[in-house]
Amino acid sequence: MSYTVKTIEWRGDEVVMIDQRVLPLLEEYIHHATWQEVGDSIRKMVIRGAPAIGVATAMGIALAAMQSSATSYEELKKDLEAASKGLFATRPTAYNLGWALQQQQEIWGQPGDPDDIRAALKKRSQEILEEDIAMCMAMGEHAAPLFPPGARILTHCNAGALATAGYGTALGVIRSVFQRDPTIHVFADETRPFLQGARLTAWELQKEGIPCSIITDNMSGYFFKKGEIDAVVVGSDRIAANGDVANKIGTYTVSVLAREHGVPFYVAAPTSTVDLSLADGSRIPIEEREICEVTHIGDHQVAPDGIAVRNPAFDVTPHQNVTAIITEAGVHREPYIESLAGIKKGK
Amino acid sequence: MSYTVKTIEWRGDEVVMIDQRVLPLLEEYIHHATWQEVGDSIRKMVIRGAPAIGVATAMGIALAAMQSSATSYEELKKDLEAASKGLFATRPTAYNLGWALQQQQEIWGQPGDPDDIRAALKKRSQEILEEDIAMCMAMGEHAAPLFPPGARILTHCNAGALATAGYGTALGVIRSVFQRDPTIHVFADETRPFLQGARLTAWELQKEGIPCSIITDNMSGYFFKKGEIDAVVVGSDRIAANGDVANKIGTYTVSVLAREHGVPFYVAAPTSTVDLSLADGSRIPIEEREICEVTHIGDHQVAPDGIAVRNPAFDVTPHQNVTAIITEAGVHREPYIESLAGIKKGK
Repeated sequence: MSYTVKTIEWRGDEVVMIDQRVLPLLEEYIHHATWQEVGDSIRKMVIRGAPAIGVATAMGIALAAMQSSATSYEELKKDLEAASKGLFATRPTAYNLGWALQQQQEIWGQPGDPDDIRAALKKRSQEILEEDIAMCMAMGEHAAPLFPPGARILTHCNAGALATAGYGTALGVIRSVFQRDPTIHVFADETRPFLQGARLTAWELQKEGIPCSIITDNMSGYFFKKGEIDAVVVGSDRIAANGDVANKIGTYTVSVLAREHGVPFYVAAPTSTVDLSLADGSRIPIEEREICEVTHIGDHQVAPDGIAVRNPAFDVTPHQNVTAIITEAGVHREPYIESLAGIKKGK
Repeated sequence: MSYTVKTIEWRGDEVVMIDQRVLPLLEEYIHHATWQEVGDSIRKMVIRGAPAIGVATAMGIALAAMQSSATSYEELKKDLEAASKGLFATRPTAYNLGWALQQQQEIWGQPGDPDDIRAALKKRSQEILEEDIAMCMAMGEHAAPLFPPGARILTHCNAGALATAGYGTALGVIRSVFQRDPTIHVFADETRPFLQGARLTAWELQKEGIPCSIITDNMSGYFFKKGEIDAVVVGSDRIAANGDVANKIGTYTVSVLAREHGVPFYVAAPTSTVDLSLADGSRIPIEEREICEVTHIGDHQVAPDGIAVRNPAFDVTPHQNVTAIITEAGVHREPYIESLAGIKKGK
């Protein structure tokens, strides 16, 4: 159950994140002393992945409390309301962001001594980090028996240690499968435009010695058709009550290909990703990001000046295409409207 | 029926090609005085696209004849056999390459005066270029009525003027549709790893003022699902007798998405792309190219050192996913085994 990547952590009263924009060529760490800096890093994707964004958000609120010169509860509350609003606006799709704000609000929403609240917010953010790792490991345990011996597993984007507090959701599952069966092989979609697969998933798997081949996003159909993919596992940014799954752009296409070829399609995500307030995926907000992510790769321009671009960052996979959803509570199957509702009730 | 791009042409006794590796940022032309230089440019994808490769090959054989110091027919034949073998080995999937070699062999296969053969080979290569443009324009005329008013058309890779002697196959169709209906909109898949869509298709469409948005290859599923794509048109590198279509990697995935969403999927290619010697697509050779195309974008490294990569350059779309194949002879539909056989017979 080992993993070697530190995505985000407290060092003293600073929040330190590995800069996911410059991996795998550079391993640089950014220090954050304010919630505004954390918000900036979420927006610019220094840190990304719904569970990791949740941890960063909780830590951001703790920083906001430390920044605040408030001596009364009312003053502190005002500052934390502003910080919550600012952090909420950074990325619209990740449900864990709002979930983490709510976790912290349960603390600062109750009147109390400002210094006690400051300490409690920091402590809770560290708990969220540790709970996240524990949930990822539990997902791995639940999911590992689903994979056949020597499985060739496709994953899309990075749902790894880097997308979480550590270990990973989809890559956590792959880590757990690999511990039982070192003969597996992973296909990592490169995942344009941000290249989370080529840059982050490949880097994580290489560090752990898990056999892996990078492919471009348009190649998986070729390997599905040749019978070279036995299973798919991806993470999620938000799951609706009926099991519709928002995840990185391109996930929907992979799900269509998987169903076309009779290959199981698994989603691994903590229950904090499940948004029971949404009946289905049609109302999950989908972020459109800047066009330069598509027209440029690093500093390298790949498209003509002035060309139009569309850049939706996520898509929604309908529950009919999802073989099972794996959370820390277990393996959930259709009808998700029941199996997911049950899990949240139990919490 | 205008187009402004010169892909390949004779200038005196040199073959001049626009360098498709550095577009759209640079517009550079490479001069070729030998068949070996032409072979090198085909292999390195200075020129690409099956019909353009066909023209380049025919011109390469003409250059080989000019290079040869042969004074007898037998000597010349020996030199041209060597050049044919060398050119044939450059790219395995494009059927037009072998077709162009055969066209030229019909000339040099007959004993004759070496200088007469030299002149005839050059003349034939120019004819192939002109015929190719005429065929593209005929395809456009046949196909244009298939598209609804204001059609939003997805294309993959570049099957444009740059992939042919001029005008284009799939982009020729789009040019012809646009002349009738300036309200159309094109989605251009960026087409990793070589980025033919972002670099070449976007550049061609922008030059002609045809409205176009670039998307990454994993985004089309999102737009299909939202009902924002009305038709697909792509080119082809080789078509089997049953209508199975080899084309740029990722085409198969687009065809699966099109069928899933009830969107017509058209293939535009000259009859010289149809290989009646292959009963179906399973025996079309698929080139795997160098891994650096995936690990790097331009000089920019995007993947960790030493990572494994798969890089198939083409895939095969089964005829069941193809709504119609458009050649210079007309619009062909199932059963392709009959409709395609008829066309070749008529030539």
